Amino acid sequence: MAQAHWGCCPWLVFLCACAWSHPKPIHLGREDVRNCTTNPPYLPITAVNTTARLTALRQQIQAWNLSAYIIPDTDAHMSEYIGLHDERRAWISGFTGTAGTAVVTMIKAAVWTDSRYWTQAERQMDCNWELHKEVGITPLATWILNEIPAGGRVGIDPFLFSVDSWKAYDLKFQGSNRQLVSIVTNLVDLAWGSQRPPVPSQPIYALPEAFTGSTWQEKVSSIRSHMKNHTMAPTALLLSALDETAWLFNLRSNDIPYNPFFYSYTMLTDSSIRLFVNKSRFSPETLQYLNSNCTGPMCVQLEDYSQVRDSVQAYALGDVRIWIGTTYTTYGLYEVIPQDKLVTSTYSPVMEAKAVKNSKEQALLKASHVRDAVAVIRYLVWLEKNVPKGTVDEFSGAELLDELRRKEDFSSGPSFETISASGLNAALAHYSPTKELHRKLSSDEMYLVDSGGQYWDGTTDITRTVHWGTPTAFQKEAYTRVLMGNIDLSRLVFPAAMQGRMVEAFARKALWDVGLNYGHGTGHGIGNFLCVHEWPVGFQSNNIAMAKGMFTSIEPGYYHDGEFGIRLEDVALVVEAKTKYPGTYLTFEVVSFVPYDRNLIDVSLLSPEQLQYLNHYYQNIREQVGPVLQRRQLLEEFAWLQQHTEPLAAGAPRRRSWASVWAACTLALLSWTS
Amino acid sequence: MAQAHWGCCPWLVFLCACAWSHPKPIHLGREDVRNCTTNPPYLPITAVNTTARLTALRQQIQAWNLSAYIIPDTDAHMSEYIGLHDERRAWISGFTGTAGTAVVTMIKAAVWTDSRYWTQAERQMDCNWELHKEVGITPLATWILNEIPAGGRVGIDPFLFSVDSWKAYDLKFQGSNRQLVSIVTNLVDLAWGSQRPPVPSQPIYALPEAFTGSTWQEKVSSIRSHMKNHTMAPTALLLSALDETAWLFNLRSNDIPYNPFFYSYTMLTDSSIRLFVNKSRFSPETLQYLNSNCTGPMCVQLEDYSQVRDSVQAYALGDVRIWIGTTYTTYGLYEVIPQDKLVTSTYSPVMEAKAVKNSKEQALLKASHVRDAVAVIRYLVWLEKNVPKGTVDEFSGAELLDELRRKEDFSSGPSFETISASGLNAALAHYSPTKELHRKLSSDEMYLVDSGGQYWDGTTDITRTVHWGTPTAFQKEAYTRVLMGNIDLSRLVFPAAMQGRMVEAFARKALWDVGLNYGHGTGHGIGNFLCVHEWPVGFQSNNIAMAKGMFTSIEPGYYHDGEFGIRLEDVALVVEAKTKYPGTYLTFEVVSFVPYDRNLIDVSLLSPEQLQYLNHYYQNIREQVGPVLQRRQLLEEFAWLQQHTEPLAAGAPRRRSWASVWAACTLALLSWTS
Repeated sequence: MAQAHWGCCPWLVFLCACAWSHPKPIHLGREDVRNCTTNPPYLPITAVNTTARLTALRQQIQAWNLSAYIIPDTDAHMSEYIGLHDERRAWISGFTGTAGTAVVTMIKAAVWTDSRYWTQAERQMDCNWELHKEVGITPLATWILNEIPAGGRVGIDPFLFSVDSWKAYDLKFQGSNRQLVSIVTNLVDLAWGSQRPPVPSQPIYALPEAFTGSTWQEKVSSIRSHMKNHTMAPTALLLSALDETAWLFNLRSNDIPYNPFFYSYTMLTDSSIRLFVNKSRFSPETLQYLNSNCTGPMCVQLEDYSQVRDSVQAYALGDVRIWIGTTYTTYGLYEVIPQDKLVTSTYSPVMEAKAVKNSKEQALLKASHVRDAVAVIRYLVWLEKNVPKGTVDEFSGAELLDELRRKEDFSSGPSFETISASGLNAALAHYSPTKELHRKLSSDEMYLVDSGGQYWDGTTDITRTVHWGTPTAFQKEAYTRVLMGNIDLSRLVFPAAMQGRMVEAFARKALWDVGLNYGHGTGHGIGNFLCVHEWPVGFQSNNIAMAKGMFTSIEPGYYHDGEFGIRLEDVALVVEAKTKYPGTYLTFEVVSFVPYDRNLIDVSLLSPEQLQYLNHYYQNIREQVGPVLQRRQLLEEFAWLQQHTEPLAAGAPRRRSWASVWAACTLALLSWTS
Repeated sequence: MAQAHWGCCPWLVFLCACAWSHPKPIHLGREDVRNCTTNPPYLPITAVNTTARLTALRQQIQAWNLSAYIIPDTDAHMSEYIGLHDERRAWISGFTGTAGTAVVTMIKAAVWTDSRYWTQAERQMDCNWELHKEVGITPLATWILNEIPAGGRVGIDPFLFSVDSWKAYDLKFQGSNRQLVSIVTNLVDLAWGSQRPPVPSQPIYALPEAFTGSTWQEKVSSIRSHMKNHTMAPTALLLSALDETAWLFNLRSNDIPYNPFFYSYTMLTDSSIRLFVNKSRFSPETLQYLNSNCTGPMCVQLEDYSQVRDSVQAYALGDVRIWIGTTYTTYGLYEVIPQDKLVTSTYSPVMEAKAVKNSKEQALLKASHVRDAVAVIRYLVWLEKNVPKGTVDEFSGAELLDELRRKEDFSSGPSFETISASGLNAALAHYSPTKELHRKLSSDEMYLVDSGGQYWDGTTDITRTVHWGTPTAFQKEAYTRVLMGNIDLSRLVFPAAMQGRMVEAFARKALWDVGLNYGHGTGHGIGNFLCVHEWPVGFQSNNIAMAKGMFTSIEPGYYHDGEFGIRLEDVALVVEAKTKYPGTYLTFEVVSFVPYDRNLIDVSLLSPEQLQYLNHYYQNIREQVGPVLQRRQLLEEFAWLQQHTEPLAAGAPRRRSWASVWAACTLALLSWTS
């Protein structure tokens, strides 16, 4: 797991599940929040004065003859992480949490966010703002209906609403004599004016061939054959998600935090390739790489990013059918395509093709995980030495881990904000420490670290939970049962084309057995230097069927409110399983190579099969990572690895009596002689 | 499992899954099929001459200015089993299979059915009919579009189409210049005329209080409170499924094969109860039971069955909102309710309330399963003695089993057509023997018997598979793995409100492990003297979440084409699980009390937990059924039961060496001493 927002790889369901299981607000340590009931109101130093900002926005609202304006928290590509210049809700409200929607009327202003952010919102917002603690479209729409007069117009930027969310809002206003109005000009941007951070302009570069699975030409040809085989015969495919275009052309940049993407759209037809992007960001070499100086079916025509809507609209005038993935295409493009010219699917063929890694991509992703394991192991070894000294905290630990990753070859920074959580903080699903607010690591507490890296060859995501002192029996049992769930799902053999959701309960059974569970999803896809939460792979209801060559995280957990949290997350490749009887069956091959904490494993709970699996996995870690540590003279880490991957011996079930031992021996002897 | 059609308890998904896994046609033993390519065509003696029937129908088609008429295989309540007078497709085409749709144009006539019925259709249809081997609406609609001219009208009886199937057909014709036309008068009935079997008229009776969980007044009050609590504030609830009305009023009759139902609809409002039914079928006592002579909110107003559409339409003129369950309400009622007066849910509150049995209903259903076990055990004992003599066949066996059930108290016949299948026949999902076509039972073959009874206190459904000779190692392994799946799901502990589909894979894992699987669903709800396939409980995607008090079948299987078939089906009650740590968890309590075949169990494959569960289950069978057998002087059966429920001892893993025995002993000793 990683901190999850909306968007690219629309991770919302997973997020909601997490939020649901942890209804308690994150206490940021300081309870210095606003008090709007006193006169004058009390505002903490962290609160932002939004009076001028609201005045500027309300001028725009009035100019456009609106009664209200909705400001969501995403960008025009439904990205999971958004750039600074897209943080409109944060700018207008002061509240910088990653989830939450604002609405501004001529009189009122309000933010809706979930329990994780309530305290943060009370610290950051001034008294211009109401805070609403419900989530979802219904309470927000109901509030608007109460606040604005009959005949009122509710403005939205259609590029910040997915097709589905637009439809959901529209439905709420139907028959209410209030109207949802699509305005392509973003009114917050007009109010923001020159203060708005600039749109990124750094170079967009082609990935070296060593780091790509296929050329862009091969990918384009393959996607075109998908289009040709579609029963609805689409004439064009419109790509809106940033990782779709990045993957298709093997291009990367740095527009989005944690994701190596650049703002873009692609429209692919049988005879043309149109890439909507800021053209000035390409070097002459990259322009040549894209064949941008010709006009044939294998030449990439560059058009300005801002022209995409007009271009799609113009194209839609012809006898055409435009294929879109409805999950992440915005209403801003959807609304300019006539219904009878639309071909829709949940995910585009690019999303589905990207999900299945070819053998080179598999090797690249594995290689990045080996180096990532080196960084994590170095961190765990360092912690083991330094935590007892009392000099490590959650934040400095996370910084060190990021630094260790940066030392690895082909590193391109973290793949999400590191979750570094000690003791009770780990029971919060989305906790990340800050420079100001963090907890000291201690040998008396469990520590959870969920982190990942971006490398040119792959994206990584791994969670380990450790205890350097004496864990309680309950902590050991909970940890071991989380591990058993991880193992049971990882070693599962299942029929090809199975939906992940049909098998994710295997990761929970060991917990369920004793009345424990976790409130989040069990795993998500991951990319080759792309999204850390890559759709549409995973174990949720909206994921596609498992297929050989996909990668998914496997990440059961257990969270004990106010005490501790456990998560054990690995990334695994879907591979063919060899079965006793012939058939097409799949299983997982784990490519995260960091041992679990022996101090927290109660071996007596493990079945012989689980133990055998675990020892085999440890052997594999030794083979994959050991030589690398030796080669790099990381001898202390090598010794640590050997020690932590020693084969585990079958544990003794407790309270075994002489009688049962005698019975077991007799039975074993009898069975042998019979 | 049982032979599954459409309809009441719309069992279609399960059926399709079965059909999918068994693509080979059922060979009825005799391949005497029609040959329409010779001149004159060859027609077997089983073929029905439909020329006059088609002429009569085409007169109606012409009179109504239609180009085609669609004849489905269901009734006006989407029932799983249908009465003789509703077998319109069978009458017009000659083809009596339980699944298949016919279309008649002025020139052509065609039937679409799945692979199970192809041979049967070729034996029963004359050369007036085309046979189409695709299933689903698309091929059928495409055929109609090709066959009828532009401007053509396609007639249907809206009472024979669910809301969803109407919409699916309508969508196919949109923009094609062909129109779907709803005609309430059934044209096949007009053609059928006086030859059509009469509509049932036997008495409708109230169940004795001893066999009901609540009075109808209590049920009505409870459903009204569901209506009151609904956010859309429905003013009326319209019940279309036959088991809804039968359950609500504790009334039964015998209109439908295998189901104790009577043709009816109910419209319930806050102030009135309207029961649409043939009033003459009630005795004075039953009329009094229903308070039918008054008009208050607790008086049942009887209206004629045929008036339901007009009455709903008239009611819909007011300021009302009518709640329907969309899965089984027909277009015939849906189309007379304006959209803004509809409140829809997949299942009505009656369906959901009926699914959760109260403690008395639970006790009743369990009691019926104890008696049912006596009948099945008597049958298995008899088979054990008589199969070796070579005097038993599938059909005579099924007849005997039905007879043994009829001897049990409160018996009301079988709950579905017994599947009695020997050897390769058991590999066919929906095989049932006939008087003419059946296979002899043999000690050299496996035998599968899937059967159930209707009793005043409950409906039963159980499958056992046996072998009286020497099964192959593969047969034993497959049987044991099916049993392991049954046990693993039966003993699963899972969180309350879990969807069945999220856990059904536990019934498959032991098979998956070695590359085996089965192609049908894992279980379905069951009623108290109601449907044997009672929606909406079960393990499929359209089932509702599991709750304490529900009953479901658990029925993994394995089918080896052309060789043998295995299914082990029990009915289980959903109960609260006691977990080590506090939480609301559920598990199953099996109420089918017939032991599995020891001859087919390879104990060495079972885990200690599975073995412990099995022995506990056997102990429970002894306690539940043993005293009944003794009391009824069924001493041979009692002895058989004792023998077949002897605790099983842990099996010896094969190829165990002296070294491993020594190692196991040492480990056991060490673990004890440490």
